[in-house]
Amino acid sequence: MASIPTKVQINEEGPREGFQIEKGNIPTARKIELIDSLSQTGLNRIQIVSFVNPKAVPGMADAEEVVEGFNKKPGISYVGLWLNDKGLKRAIDSGRLEVKGSVSLSASEPFLMRNQNRTQEENIPLQHKTMEMFKANNVAVTRGAVMAAFGCNFAGAISPDTVLATITTAKEIAAAHGFKLEQMMLADTMAWGTPAAVKRLVGAVQDKHPELNICLHLHDTRGMGIANAYAGLEMGVNTFDAAVAGLGGCPFAGHAGAAGNVCTEDLVFMCDEMGIETGINLEALMESARLAEEIVGHPLPGSVMRGGSLRALREQVAAARAA
Amino acid sequence: MASIPTKVQINEEGPREGFQIEKGNIPTARKIELIDSLSQTGLNRIQIVSFVNPKAVPGMADAEEVVEGFNKKPGISYVGLWLNDKGLKRAIDSGRLEVKGSVSLSASEPFLMRNQNRTQEENIPLQHKTMEMFKANNVAVTRGAVMAAFGCNFAGAISPDTVLATITTAKEIAAAHGFKLEQMMLADTMAWGTPAAVKRLVGAVQDKHPELNICLHLHDTRGMGIANAYAGLEMGVNTFDAAVAGLGGCPFAGHAGAAGNVCTEDLVFMCDEMGIETGINLEALMESARLAEEIVGHPLPGSVMRGGSLRALREQVAAARAA
Repeated sequence: MASIPTKVQINEEGPREGFQIEKGNIPTARKIELIDSLSQTGLNRIQIVSFVNPKAVPGMADAEEVVEGFNKKPGISYVGLWLNDKGLKRAIDSGRLEVKGSVSLSASEPFLMRNQNRTQEENIPLQHKTMEMFKANNVAVTRGAVMAAFGCNFAGAISPDTVLATITTAKEIAAAHGFKLEQMMLADTMAWGTPAAVKRLVGAVQDKHPELNICLHLHDTRGMGIANAYAGLEMGVNTFDAAVAGLGGCPFAGHAGAAGNVCTEDLVFMCDEMGIETGINLEALMESARLAEEIVGHPLPGSVMRGGSLRALREQVAAARAA
Repeated sequence: MASIPTKVQINEEGPREGFQIEKGNIPTARKIELIDSLSQTGLNRIQIVSFVNPKAVPGMADAEEVVEGFNKKPGISYVGLWLNDKGLKRAIDSGRLEVKGSVSLSASEPFLMRNQNRTQEENIPLQHKTMEMFKANNVAVTRGAVMAAFGCNFAGAISPDTVLATITTAKEIAAAHGFKLEQMMLADTMAWGTPAAVKRLVGAVQDKHPELNICLHLHDTRGMGIANAYAGLEMGVNTFDAAVAGLGGCPFAGHAGAAGNVCTEDLVFMCDEMGIETGINLEALMESARLAEEIVGHPLPGSVMRGGSLRALREQVAAARAA
């Protein structure tokens, strides 16, 4: 078995995940305030907007203004999300984002039908077109992604074999255009995962596609997020997506108020306490988390921002001993 | 390494943990309603009250009425908590509870000082007196407990060696009165634990005290509860304390609203999905969790009651396939 990594890469997706799903209009200036706050925490990759149809996602209608307004800090990759040519064009035109391509597939056909209204068979030529689009725009493709990798509300459990085959397809699509995938994101889009399932799937991918670095994108809808991340760590996974304060919610949950992405500061807390380097300042990140909560105006799922880190307690204990 | 158990024992502590800490007066009838609801879930051990000084814990002043009023279901151990002779006497006199003794020690002296105003040295003779009291009342002692086993807000990190020595002391105290400890509860009272720390401590206890069954009492104040439980499962731990809906809060957390005990239904969900038998009906337990939330009148930390279980989704998928 792999050993727990000494260092992990945490990709922050809170601004995009969060502002996309929040009801009500969050002022552009406040979105920028959160992004600027996150830039002070040591995070080195922050997804700040999605370039989607403003009619479909009104909360992202100000994507260009957000991209124009935030304070770009050297050493940080600021990225955006898009779902089609138009979105990619907007991301490139914004001029302030790192634009990288990916092959994004779904392990569940019913989810693909529901989400993008196409079959797996119809999706393949569209993915090839997307690769052409990346090429035409001089955008490199090194990442792949498999949605619904653990289970699907519309297809049930997803077997590791299905995911392995989906990854093979992604590699073939990339290769047909001269791209070589280096990283594969496995997304537990609808929170079907458990630690045992994470170990099973990650192990299978490591065996079959050993050249790929695995990134876990875990939703916390059923409270398994941190446990699933720990299972990933135990398998040697060193890259995680997460959202500050647990921003994001879950559009597929059974009840309103369900948690979204695994919470960044809770993940950083676990890593810190287990001696795993993240490069992130937990105290600063907790401030960002409280700011996020203030901005959305309702409680967010993060635990450490409420329970407190152990730093101040350790300092008190040390001070009491010295006295 | 031990393998994950095929079956676990989950001890429900929600009614005691929850009603003890909630502000405001919860009517006795509603407490009984929750206990009766929990009795329908398959739980076989439920801690329903604590017999403490009503001046110190006004929320438990109606302990006798609660014990008198609930519907006792055969096959379930209903238990109470007490901290002194007076409390034990009240538990015995109530006549409807299973009364079993334990040796309860703290791995942290500053916590003991703060909580019970005594040093470790002062505590030993008091524990012996407690054993005499159990004997005089014909109460068997088979369980031990170590509070603050992972860390302490007033002492900092607690080393496994300290816990091992504390367990040895507990065994000696019991043995001096002819009792033999069978189970040892390790309590992460102030939520300092991580999965790595759970593995380290549980492994050390298994090596040094192999005859003891380990029970983990995990607080979720910093969001590590389920991950810590998973780490325990991986070490072969098969007994857990938990609280429905995550009732309980944490009196030591840095901020109000911090989570308390690890949430029973989230733990049951993880076990169900990993093929570990609990004997508990998740859907019924989720109903109890929602009832608990309604009774306390504010959101509780449980995730699965909000995110939904996977049962209905699986049934929908099966129905769609059959159609």
